[in-house]
Amino acid sequence: MAAVAKADAKNDNTMRSTHLTIEAAADAAEKENQQISVAVVDRNGNTILAMRGDGVGPQSFESTVKKAYTAVSWNAPSSRLVKCLANVPTLKDIPGTLFLGGGASVTANSAPIAGFGGAGAPSTGLDEKSPGRRRRSGEVVRRGSPTDR
Amino acid sequence: MAAVAKADAKNDNTMRSTHLTIEAAADAAEKENQQISVAVVDRNGNTILAMRGDGVGPQSFESTVKKAYTAVSWNAPSSRLVKCLANVPTLKDIPGTLFLGGGASVTANSAPIAGFGGAGAPSTGLDEKSPGRRRRSGEVVRRGSPTDR
Amino acid sequence: MAAVAKADAKNDNTMRSTHLTIEAAADAAEKENQQISVAVVDRNGNTILAMRGDGVGPQSFESTVKKAYTAVSWNAPSSRLVKCLANVPTLKDIPGTLFLGGGASVTANSAPIAGFGGAGAPSTGLDEKSPGRRRRSGEVVRRGSPTDR
Amino acid sequence: MAAVAKADAKNDNTMRSTHLTIEAAADAAEKENQQISVAVVDRNGNTILAMRGDGVGPQSFESTVKKAYTAVSWNAPSSRLVKCLANVPTLKDIPGTLFLGGGASVTANSAPIAGFGGAGAPSTGLDEKSPGRRRRSGEVVRRGSPTDR
Amino acid sequence: MAAVAKADAKNDNTMRSTHLTIEAAADAAEKENQQISVAVVDRNGNTILAMRGDGVGPQSFESTVKKAYTAVSWNAPSSRLVKCLANVPTLKDIPGTLFLGGGASVTANSAPIAGFGGAGAPSTGLDEKSPGRRRRSGEVVRRGSPTDR
Amino acid sequence: MAAVAKADAKNDNTMRSTHLTIEAAADAAEKENQQISVAVVDRNGNTILAMRGDGVGPQSFESTVKKAYTAVSWNAPSSRLVKCLANVPTLKDIPGTLFLGGGASVTANSAPIAGFGGAGAPSTGLDEKSPGRRRRSGEVVRRGSPTDR
Amino acid sequence: MAAVAKADAKNDNTMRSTHLTIEAAADAAEKENQQISVAVVDRNGNTILAMRGDGVGPQSFESTVKKAYTAVSWNAPSSRLVKCLANVPTLKDIPGTLFLGGGASVTANSAPIAGFGGAGAPSTGLDEKSPGRRRRSGEVVRRGSPTDR
Amino acid sequence: MAAVAKADAKNDNTMRSTHLTIEAAADAAEKENQQISVAVVDRNGNTILAMRGDGVGPQSFESTVKKAYTAVSWNAPSSRLVKCLANVPTLKDIPGTLFLGGGASVTANSAPIAGFGGAGAPSTGLDEKSPGRRRRSGEVVRRGSPTDR
Repeated sequence: MAAVAKADAKNDNTMRSTHLTIEAAADAAEKENQQISVAVVDRNGNTILAMRGDGVGPQSFESTVKKAYTAVSWNAPSSRLVKCLANVPTLKDIPGTLFLGGGASVTANSAPIAGFGGAGAPSTGLDEKSPGRRRRSGEVVRRGSPTDR
Repeated sequence: MAAVAKADAKNDNTMRSTHLTIEAAADAAEKENQQISVAVVDRNGNTILAMRGDGVGPQSFESTVKKAYTAVSWNAPSSRLVKCLANVPTLKDIPGTLFLGGGASVTANSAPIAGFGGAGAPSTGLDEKSPGRRRRSGEVVRRGSPTDR
Repeated sequence: MAAVAKADAKNDNTMRSTHLTIEAAADAAEKENQQISVAVVDRNGNTILAMRGDGVGPQSFESTVKKAYTAVSWNAPSSRLVKCLANVPTLKDIPGTLFLGGGASVTANSAPIAGFGGAGAPSTGLDEKSPGRRRRSGEVVRRGSPTDR
Repeated sequence: MAAVAKADAKNDNTMRSTHLTIEAAADAAEKENQQISVAVVDRNGNTILAMRGDGVGPQSFESTVKKAYTAVSWNAPSSRLVKCLANVPTLKDIPGTLFLGGGASVTANSAPIAGFGGAGAPSTGLDEKSPGRRRRSGEVVRRGSPTDR
Repeated sequence: MAAVAKADAKNDNTMRSTHLTIEAAADAAEKENQQISVAVVDRNGNTILAMRGDGVGPQSFESTVKKAYTAVSWNAPSSRLVKCLANVPTLKDIPGTLFLGGGASVTANSAPIAGFGGAGAPSTGLDEKSPGRRRRSGEVVRRGSPTDR
Repeated sequence: MAAVAKADAKNDNTMRSTHLTIEAAADAAEKENQQISVAVVDRNGNTILAMRGDGVGPQSFESTVKKAYTAVSWNAPSSRLVKCLANVPTLKDIPGTLFLGGGASVTANSAPIAGFGGAGAPSTGLDEKSPGRRRRSGEVVRRGSPTDR
Repeated sequence: MAAVAKADAKNDNTMRSTHLTIEAAADAAEKENQQISVAVVDRNGNTILAMRGDGVGPQSFESTVKKAYTAVSWNAPSSRLVKCLANVPTLKDIPGTLFLGGGASVTANSAPIAGFGGAGAPSTGLDEKSPGRRRRSGEVVRRGSPTDR
Repeated sequence: MAAVAKADAKNDNTMRSTHLTIEAAADAAEKENQQISVAVVDRNGNTILAMRGDGVGPQSFESTVKKAYTAVSWNAPSSRLVKCLANVPTLKDIPGTLFLGGGASVTANSAPIAGFGGAGAPSTGLDEKSPGRRRRSGEVVRRGSPTDR
């Protein structure tokens, strides 16, 4: 997520930030050897980029889009938004949202300009013995993958 | 919500009340400098007005329609209906509904004639330190916005 | 529901039982002065009858169909099925179902042949002070209406 | 499920394993006298086979597909995945999934190559007195039916 | 259709006309020995009644609703609206519509208050040799059935 | 449409043009005594405003949104785009579009910034004898209504 | 199709006929080395069997279901129904239908009891020079495949 | 399209070809200064990549996915498939397809392994006077853009 986060620092131009976000997303996928799915949505929730990872579970494709949508909707990482459900559990019933770690908001001058989502899994399934290799979200992703931590 | 609520007092004619509701909704949006989304549905749940706020999160548009639908369905503010979920949690599985603060019912002679929904957020995201500026619902709205309190 | 339940006792012929179910549903609606919504589905979940009540909330129309579908799926009243969620909460994620009181299964020779659903509300909204007139389900229906008790 | 599980041991070829899975699914349905619904999805979640059981509830058809999808998504039996919801309850909001016992993943060389789902019920409805004949999932299936135990 | 058409002449009250329309629809289905599907929608296109005929093709259920919707949308029989497609072929791309004979508009004081749709077929399929018993629309209905002629 | 078209001449600022478009749409509806439905979408096809006219057919609500979407997609009035179907008839199969008169594109510095759609009908139905009062599109609208001519 | 057609001659029992249809469909797929997709729907249009062929285009899966639905709806082979469009072109706008060769109706005592659909293609694409190996329908299938001729 | 087409010549490995297709798609978009939308689907029609162009009409995003799906379904360029509609006009009613120029099939050893779709338009709208800069398909794309010629 670091590369994506820098998009904010470097730009004050929305269009250029969005491009950098797409590039950062593509780079993150490349670094993972294409084994993660990534998505970018604009401020209005329209999907700008959706890319399916090699060998990842089919659920990752649509969930990355929804994580990105959720992050840009409230301008916060989706892992932080998950905690809001303790107080307002019906937030997650809003169409288009998914309250699961792996989404991040990209900002320019403090305003949200895009959302990013990532998810992916090696083909070895759920193994709760190796938490280092997997996210707490239950969607198994590799260490260093473009999630929101 | 005050302006909307008055529609009830002034009218005994459904059609006229609906018009006043639309006007009250538009006025509320105007007063917020268009930074909230608003919706009005009729007694049968048909959308009469849906207006997207400037710079609000994309989730606000569809959620206002659903809040309005929920309020008119049971003729009660959606914030009150949220409390019913403690006893009947599956009420929220009824299609078209959203149990989240921000919906209100408009009545003429005690009968529901329309539903109203509002939602919106400045681009600063979730900030639980400033509860005064945001609703408990988790959908961040400005003080005085046309929600159901 | 008594009239509907009798369909079982009187028939051993599926088609005739379904007709009697439709008639019982129509009669129940008639008795309530058309102020409830009713639905009948066949054993395979196909809607056979759907009728919207006068002045009821819009949510009642689709929810009656889903209650009927749920009842015939497990051959049990939906109010009893609600209790199963305590042990298996994800049952309610099965598409087409709604776990809310008001659905009943109709049987011939102990096998389910149809599902029935009812819902409705006078225009006075939620009033928790008069539990006698309303069902615990939160969908407000009149005493004696064709629900599953 | 034993027959299905063996597909893994016998093959290292994806296509052949998928065929064996379909055959095992068909055999399982046959053994149950066609009174269960079964489904097979490929690694990418596409439905390869969907077969509706005789006399089963209508909800079983679509739920078998979703169970198979869920199992292949995380390469684990759906009954095990249900337990993950205790920690990550929003996993079940991912589109296409259903966290309910009855789904299994089929693997070749440890990698998931297909998902399998089964569900079905005799027409006698829910009877909590005979747990031996029914799965804890709440979807009533016969002893020995192709679920994931 | 005659019985339905009379609803207009007898009433000047919308609610009562709608009730008469439902009754006329039910009577028409009864006269056909339940072998037709019928539907009634209100002025805003909301389904008020949908009833599936015995032994009719499955396509008839949804198509009656759409015929009724189409008729009330333009306040004209759907068979007449079909002819409009010669000049404006894309009219039929409007969601919810179906330009096929069998829909009728019900009016009170010349204004549309409801739409009606009917369709049905004996199980003998298409037989173009007996045009007297079937409508030109290709949806086979019996002579005298509640279509729009 | 004249009022809407002027939005282009007066502005070079996207946000302001969109606001003017909304106002022009609301004014047009007002002038027609609320008897037309109107919609505004932004450059990316997101609905900004949708308003249902009094007494218009139910089909008008969704069709205005689609007309606006179509106009902004190709930056041309929908009536002109209808003519393109003679050469490329499958253009109309693109999701979200509706090739029917009544849509217009709003531009700032020649670039499309919003789409507008309008439709509506008095309750008198189709009357091809009075073409002056109705559009050739088959969606009956009043002279001077905010269509695209 | 011959094997499927015989189901009619041999049976007068609906359930048994449906089973034979499924078996005939599975046999047909087997004979084609699994390189076709097949589907069976019951009289009410519910999918009983859907099986995706190896290496066939993805469009074949859903289209077989719709062909089967179309055939059972009017109790006629879909290739014959295609010809009806010359007189009633809007028949094809009925939801769930697909007017394309490859669907057949299965009857018992002249009444339709099930629909069958088949489609498939070798990976060589459209080659109009070898009509013998492909159907005129444009969905390329092998000689002898279970279509409706 | 040239770069994409070469993927076939260089590879005999499906996975690698798909990667090259994605890269070729990204390169094509890059060359056009991101002013086109592009999409890649796999042999089973699953979306692998979807990327929205800068400033293109909103309809381009979903239509590129459908063009790619159509091309891989019949292993032919979508512009060639358009011609098939003259003989089999209902082919275009198959769900997921779009018969419009701009889709191409990618093959390895003559078998289809992926589909590609492209669409895009400068913000100047339809201008039939400059056919050299635009495709006959009506979706305006730049000379040299990754369509199927």
